[in-house]
Amino acid sequence: MHEQFNFAIEVLGTISFAMSGSFAAMQKRLDPFGVLIIAFVTSVGGGTVRDLLLDIPVFWMHDLLTCALILGTSIFAMIFKSIEKNFKVTLFIFDSFGLGLFTIIGVQKGLNAEIHPFICIALGTITGCFGGIIRDILLNRIPLIFRKEIYATACIVGGSVFLLMTKYIPLSYTFIQIFTILLIVAIRTLAVKYQWQIPKFYGHDHNSEM
Amino acid sequence: MHEQFNFAIEVLGTISFAMSGSFAAMQKRLDPFGVLIIAFVTSVGGGTVRDLLLDIPVFWMHDLLTCALILGTSIFAMIFKSIEKNFKVTLFIFDSFGLGLFTIIGVQKGLNAEIHPFICIALGTITGCFGGIIRDILLNRIPLIFRKEIYATACIVGGSVFLLMTKYIPLSYTFIQIFTILLIVAIRTLAVKYQWQIPKFYGHDHNSEM
Amino acid sequence: MHEQFNFAIEVLGTISFAMSGSFAAMQKRLDPFGVLIIAFVTSVGGGTVRDLLLDIPVFWMHDLLTCALILGTSIFAMIFKSIEKNFKVTLFIFDSFGLGLFTIIGVQKGLNAEIHPFICIALGTITGCFGGIIRDILLNRIPLIFRKEIYATACIVGGSVFLLMTKYIPLSYTFIQIFTILLIVAIRTLAVKYQWQIPKFYGHDHNSEM
Repeated sequence: MHEQFNFAIEVLGTISFAMSGSFAAMQKRLDPFGVLIIAFVTSVGGGTVRDLLLDIPVFWMHDLLTCALILGTSIFAMIFKSIEKNFKVTLFIFDSFGLGLFTIIGVQKGLNAEIHPFICIALGTITGCFGGIIRDILLNRIPLIFRKEIYATACIVGGSVFLLMTKYIPLSYTFIQIFTILLIVAIRTLAVKYQWQIPKFYGHDHNSEM
Repeated sequence: MHEQFNFAIEVLGTISFAMSGSFAAMQKRLDPFGVLIIAFVTSVGGGTVRDLLLDIPVFWMHDLLTCALILGTSIFAMIFKSIEKNFKVTLFIFDSFGLGLFTIIGVQKGLNAEIHPFICIALGTITGCFGGIIRDILLNRIPLIFRKEIYATACIVGGSVFLLMTKYIPLSYTFIQIFTILLIVAIRTLAVKYQWQIPKFYGHDHNSEM
Repeated sequence: MHEQFNFAIEVLGTISFAMSGSFAAMQKRLDPFGVLIIAFVTSVGGGTVRDLLLDIPVFWMHDLLTCALILGTSIFAMIFKSIEKNFKVTLFIFDSFGLGLFTIIGVQKGLNAEIHPFICIALGTITGCFGGIIRDILLNRIPLIFRKEIYATACIVGGSVFLLMTKYIPLSYTFIQIFTILLIVAIRTLAVKYQWQIPKFYGHDHNSEM
């Protein structure tokens, strides 16, 4: 049952990031194949780095479903886009859900590989953020992680809460998964909506270049 | 005999991308060591990612020839450059040949590792495109993949044709290799020459940033 | 005893790059979590790529100390920064020391894995430069390697001298390590101070884009 739910999380995360990649690529006017490739890289990027770090087989190498899902999603996105014009919000939501879903998967895979919980948070954050970072670098967009938005922060908080709850709170594992995934989405969404910023207690510096 | 021809393909691909990396670096006025490093990264980048994904030993780690070839090529390129000034075309041709050669190598290595053909196309595209992408990111150039040119598209088409021909057409394997490599080079060259573009059936979007 | 000294080098390198990452991130006004992540990526980036290339377990996956060091360093850096404003020089020094320390570690790990010395120089250069490159790419700064400064050149020279001395000069291994690390730092510092540049014997090219 856990297995099935984890599978569902992976499928949803793959679709979410494929969506965000497709829209980002379409906004940059890439041709359909370019859109497909950006969707692919955005979707598998984080998990690929995670698997390489854990030294386990890269998940999509022997998994046709992932590739099929990404292909289907990007085609759907392109058709969908041709009808409606502005998807800023949809895109943002998909990116946020992908972030939440992949972060929790990353933390879990780390725990399964008997990595120290503290390091698992880093691993989850990488899994969640990396796909979007590659997408933004390839598309010459300012990486989200660098924008004023709270982004990686949401992953770190969500991952930490997940670890604490699974360890100390006697609730169904599945419930904790759903809760922390929604927590990450909520933190990011609210942060953008209300322009949350973590106070920078360090002073300003006029040399913006080293 | 297959082995020998595959070896020839690898050597030609290594030289082609080392050339394109050297010229791109020289156009950005890097010093000779910088040129060497960019040539190296451009040349081994795609194959390195491919080998990491396939979880096989990284090809250049125990292969002095590759490093020697890259060193020789970049020195040759620098001397050559000092005579003649404009190599836009030469550079483009080398980049296109590298693209074709490495894409087919990537698809083959995937098949040898018993990866599903569909995934092998993705692997071939990554092998072909990644070196140039790293080169462009390091040199702060707009990644080719993002320009209007047909680039990744050529890899996907070439890789697919290679798979279909090897499976259904009773021709010599070597002939099919040469044919598909030249096909990728031809698609890209003609696409640039005649400004081919794949129609974007999705509408325009005024928010170019998410 | 060698072991202990190598351990000291790794610790110092980790702290140096965590420092340089923290300051670079603070100069770009990232929030504290963003600073932590950039410090982390800068510090582990080079070694991670090195371990992936050598196909050995990624060093920080089972090493809590590295993560603790980076966390502590970035917190220290943020508090420190809040007092004093301009750290261009400090940042530069930390980046240079990290470069020297990690380059030599990279070359050593390559030799231990029985990689050809010539390839070990490439490996050392990658180990030394990669963390800073990822940092600069994530922060949308022009990668140092691309600036006029002598950067990778220092790694190549330092790595080569290390190999030659360990092979032909009958001095204590530890002395050679310290000497070559300081050599790399010195080359880079003097190069910047006196604006050294390696002569580009190849002519200028007006097409700065391919």
